[in-house]
Amino acid sequence: MKFFTKLAIQATNAPQPIKAAFDLINTQLYSVEERIRQQARAFDPAVEGYIAYACESSGKRLRPALALLAGGATGNINSSHLDLAVVLELIHAATLVHDDIMDGAEKRRGQPTANAKWGNSISVLLGDCLFAHALKLSTSFPDGEVSRRIASAASDVCSGEIIQTQRRFDLKLSIADYYRIIEMKTAALFAAAAELGAYINEASPEVISAMKTFGLKLGIAYQIYDDCLDIAGSESSAGKTLGSDFRKGKLTLPILHLLQNASASERHFFSEQILRGEAEDAESLTKIARESGALASAIRTTKKFLAEARGQLGVLSANKYRDGLRDVCETVEQLIERFA
Amino acid sequence: MKFFTKLAIQATNAPQPIKAAFDLINTQLYSVEERIRQQARAFDPAVEGYIAYACESSGKRLRPALALLAGGATGNINSSHLDLAVVLELIHAATLVHDDIMDGAEKRRGQPTANAKWGNSISVLLGDCLFAHALKLSTSFPDGEVSRRIASAASDVCSGEIIQTQRRFDLKLSIADYYRIIEMKTAALFAAAAELGAYINEASPEVISAMKTFGLKLGIAYQIYDDCLDIAGSESSAGKTLGSDFRKGKLTLPILHLLQNASASERHFFSEQILRGEAEDAESLTKIARESGALASAIRTTKKFLAEARGQLGVLSANKYRDGLRDVCETVEQLIERFA
Repeated sequence: MKFFTKLAIQATNAPQPIKAAFDLINTQLYSVEERIRQQARAFDPAVEGYIAYACESSGKRLRPALALLAGGATGNINSSHLDLAVVLELIHAATLVHDDIMDGAEKRRGQPTANAKWGNSISVLLGDCLFAHALKLSTSFPDGEVSRRIASAASDVCSGEIIQTQRRFDLKLSIADYYRIIEMKTAALFAAAAELGAYINEASPEVISAMKTFGLKLGIAYQIYDDCLDIAGSESSAGKTLGSDFRKGKLTLPILHLLQNASASERHFFSEQILRGEAEDAESLTKIARESGALASAIRTTKKFLAEARGQLGVLSANKYRDGLRDVCETVEQLIERFA
Repeated sequence: MKFFTKLAIQATNAPQPIKAAFDLINTQLYSVEERIRQQARAFDPAVEGYIAYACESSGKRLRPALALLAGGATGNINSSHLDLAVVLELIHAATLVHDDIMDGAEKRRGQPTANAKWGNSISVLLGDCLFAHALKLSTSFPDGEVSRRIASAASDVCSGEIIQTQRRFDLKLSIADYYRIIEMKTAALFAAAAELGAYINEASPEVISAMKTFGLKLGIAYQIYDDCLDIAGSESSAGKTLGSDFRKGKLTLPILHLLQNASASERHFFSEQILRGEAEDAESLTKIARESGALASAIRTTKKFLAEARGQLGVLSANKYRDGLRDVCETVEQLIERFA
């Protein structure tokens, strides 16, 4: 069975390139899954079930895929790459559990969230357990630098999340602020995946640095896509409630573009809608974002970041995993073009 | 100024031995405070204020004191001990921030909690930031083993907390279960403080192991004391709302002793009170716990653990820091005797 078929509701209509990229690392992704399941079993039996549930329902395994592809693109995929993939996914799973608490989300990828199932208290602790366990695992790398960079990325993720939360409903949020937030909360972990995939293979500093930049640019592009999904996607394909960024006062790139290009009176009107955060306002604002070209502008920005990411791959010698990394970029590009 | 005078509401009527122990490490505790403040400044300016507040209001610096005293008792207190102290306190601060969310606590040590000030979302992330940052700092120790043991203790703390939460209102909780929970959620970090204080000094395996056991026993004793405080203390000296364990269904040692020694009909009556979790039931149950000897029994248990902790100190050669560690035990003993 292909690993990809296990993945998310998106799998059925997922772009071809991501399927090709996942095919390359099919065996290793299964090993990563097995190791993630083993991690759940390493917990006290009283805790194991929660951990297993959170890991199962967490994500699309993008960060593991990136770590593995970066490993393949810079040498061989070895056991340390699998460990790296596990650690990154556990950190990501931890942040999702806490995100869902803060958003009061009921579903993730079509399944009840941990907070919907067990309440907020267990979920706060479940996120903590995942996080602590991930960082504990990361201290097992023989080279302490790997664990240092992972912990640093994890710290960036948390700082990015707190700034984002602090600046909900803040109409003074600039586009530069937005980039800084998504760089920390999302791109830092993508960057760590790609960078450390190369670092573990003892690639040259030039290659390691290029891979880090690749991950960073791809992560930014991916987050902009995810933000556009919230206003322009369909619930059935997203597997989650849409418009929730808007209702929670999270100002995303299309909305920031809209505000930037609005006249004074339009700006006043949009601002009032944002501050109200009502579902019907979300719908009307989405429509305006689409018609005014603000969404198109966010799509163009995404493509720019993807092009910059792809540009970094030039330092690598040609191989199928390098093509796989390019395919990941291609996937995000195809996904965001669906909103055009 | 003595560091101790900064500490908590308890300082004014704190037992003499803890003052003596803190006097020994007064200078180093100030350095630890300064380093903790530096850590807050290392964050993005948008986050710094939250971090600083959580660190200021967090704790009694028991874990740092333990790390420093263990350092002194096994050699010299060096810069790594200060770093260890900072890391342990940040982990502890993180857990307190999350505890306060789960308990819906309004005050800690007389100050508004983070959740009371900024709401649950910011507080979830604030705890995450503190935690991630602590583990990031811990990866800076030249010896990876230090960071491994810290991460492992942090993971135990989180698992202990989740089991405790899961078993709220669970009348089948045994005394053995209770010990397992407090060993993980509290004693693991005390154990890491004492163990690593010795480990950093390259003490013999025998000494390192004895110090770990010392920390573990002391941590268990301290948690039983803290649990007794919740039912037998006074709010003014505790600096927090009492009876909250009971209302939250947290079954602590005096209550477990009470249930164990109750007749079938008493047990039925107490169980109903516990399941109701009303404030007035807490008062009546506290009174019964006192009169029936259940509280006295918990006090005896605490003393037993303290004696076991002190017993471990025999492997150390005589010095003032070893006496300081003994003083910490003596302090917990004097504190719990106030409830007799």
